[in-house]
Amino acid sequence: MQSPQTLQWIGHADGHVRLIDQTRLPAALTFVDCHDTETVWQSIRALVVRGAPAIGIAAAYGVVLAARQATSVDELSRSVHEAADYLATSRPTAVNLFWALDRMRRCCAAASAAAANRAADGANAVRAALLTEAQVIHDEDRRTCQAIGQHGAALLRDGDNVLTHCNAGALATGGDGTALAVIFAAAQQGKHLHVWVDETRPLWQGARLTAWELMHRGIAATLITDSMAAHVMSLGKVQAVVVGADRIAANGDTANKIGTYAVALAAAAHDIPFYVAAPTSTFDLSLASGAAIPIEQRPAAEIAAPGGLKIAPDGVAVYNPAFDVTPARLIRGIICETGLISPVSREAIAQATRATSSAST
Amino acid sequence: MQSPQTLQWIGHADGHVRLIDQTRLPAALTFVDCHDTETVWQSIRALVVRGAPAIGIAAAYGVVLAARQATSVDELSRSVHEAADYLATSRPTAVNLFWALDRMRRCCAAASAAAANRAADGANAVRAALLTEAQVIHDEDRRTCQAIGQHGAALLRDGDNVLTHCNAGALATGGDGTALAVIFAAAQQGKHLHVWVDETRPLWQGARLTAWELMHRGIAATLITDSMAAHVMSLGKVQAVVVGADRIAANGDTANKIGTYAVALAAAAHDIPFYVAAPTSTFDLSLASGAAIPIEQRPAAEIAAPGGLKIAPDGVAVYNPAFDVTPARLIRGIICETGLISPVSREAIAQATRATSSAST
Repeated sequence: MQSPQTLQWIGHADGHVRLIDQTRLPAALTFVDCHDTETVWQSIRALVVRGAPAIGIAAAYGVVLAARQATSVDELSRSVHEAADYLATSRPTAVNLFWALDRMRRCCAAASAAAANRAADGANAVRAALLTEAQVIHDEDRRTCQAIGQHGAALLRDGDNVLTHCNAGALATGGDGTALAVIFAAAQQGKHLHVWVDETRPLWQGARLTAWELMHRGIAATLITDSMAAHVMSLGKVQAVVVGADRIAANGDTANKIGTYAVALAAAAHDIPFYVAAPTSTFDLSLASGAAIPIEQRPAAEIAAPGGLKIAPDGVAVYNPAFDVTPARLIRGIICETGLISPVSREAIAQATRATSSAST
Repeated sequence: MQSPQTLQWIGHADGHVRLIDQTRLPAALTFVDCHDTETVWQSIRALVVRGAPAIGIAAAYGVVLAARQATSVDELSRSVHEAADYLATSRPTAVNLFWALDRMRRCCAAASAAAANRAADGANAVRAALLTEAQVIHDEDRRTCQAIGQHGAALLRDGDNVLTHCNAGALATGGDGTALAVIFAAAQQGKHLHVWVDETRPLWQGARLTAWELMHRGIAATLITDSMAAHVMSLGKVQAVVVGADRIAANGDTANKIGTYAVALAAAAHDIPFYVAAPTSTFDLSLASGAAIPIEQRPAAEIAAPGGLKIAPDGVAVYNPAFDVTPARLIRGIICETGLISPVSREAIAQATRATSSAST
């Protein structure tokens, strides 16, 4: 069974964006309809939509929604830039958010310049261009996921047990996912896989979302706590690790969901290949290393009272970083839409990302 | 503030054992009164009482309770051996359980032999000997905890950040704990410590019990998910790791709460000393290595529906080992009541345990 669409543009020029409410999965499959930028911002912040590529697409649609009311090109342009600035404050770590917003800003500037001497329908023309750009970002991500799946599937063998952390599946992207796309593509090639699903505390994206996606696709999966990953590796029951990414520095250091670094250390200790699957839009070449990646801090209650269940004493101090950084030396390869980057080096990354930035402009 | 007693014998020869119900902490401080062996068995199985030394003490009292009804030495002896066999089935990993039951069996045999020709009050004499032996096991554990605390405190420096996993505190023992006794003793020496508390999924002994104990003792503590331990190490914010143990093989391989191995791997990767604190009763010299330690498997619901909170799809497969094994090479030292075993070797362990087995017989 195909999972329902994570993000969907409903209607035409005056349409809106519909998101699966991922905070309620798997108990309930419900949707949030966003008719304005504010609802998109809130949806990103509250993790209604999450996963680096999906956040980027949602933000692009959020910019489209900001352009609705403007009656002139100037007004529209101001609204778009304000919306982009605002959406950029929703979450700090996934660089795809800023990448998508930059594309929308550039699209707005180009379309505004072209429409400058079309007083009457100028704003409509820019609006149309913005919607098209958001849909192109969305479509590109679908194709990117497919390509990542194909490149990555070659790394998995029939019978492999693959461990993944958090959710880098259809729910995290506009397509089939990044890490899970690799697993889906390998399964489609007839390889029999079994997936160890880290539950991914504190917000259980593994238990709630990855287990759900794998079960829907009929792929064998076993849920474990994050603390069990090293143990199952020690039993010889893991042949590969594949995870997604929220931001990759120029040297290959990778920010991903908290706990990824611990998995990478355990994989290295057992000589298990550890792969990152991510579109090239996840690279931030402006950062020399992972030390410069901003790490989001989230509320204490996510740890101390998950789902309202009080598991710690009142007033306990809590530290809740949403991401950690896995150094490039622990990463066997980065699976991009342009192919596999392996070994991971500054030069190989520069080359792989040069290929796409020239292709997409 | 001193925490209330984890286990307590209430009354005299016909008394009973009172346990803190650790499944309800920290929300409620309540007690379970065990008047029979069955209630002790259930309390161990359900983790009302947990922690290797505490399980051993509870089981010893459980044997005492089994001796209540017998009117002859023979009948009493049969009841004691049946109860010991039964209590041994409550949980498989912590060896202190079997160690304590063996002591009770030996005590019963010796007291029965001595009482063989005292028809009238023979059973009473054996009953009295059994209660005394259980109380000796309990008292010895108190002193053992103190000694572990003193030996271990020397390893911590003023200002250290210490990471611990699960609960190896007063709630896990008859005294001040093992790993936490080290922290308590260092704090009593005037060292200012800060403790990173792994929440310890699936049953949150870190969040529920360790955080509670540390807050009661006024020691600075910060709760994190298990998946964050490696990340805080990477930030240079951990100077030592101290954990307890459920069973230590002759070569030093150590079974402890699931997730301990992942912490040990991360500590090794950051060159942070990793210490195990445990009484010599936790050693199982009959096992050459950790590979032979039986690992308890626990119910799926502990992971998929913690506290009734459904976090995974219906029918998801779950793997839930309660313990893992940390190889001796990752352990900087084992802190026992006889002193520090470091480096950890078969020979050093044989020597340290020889000292106590001769002292206690």
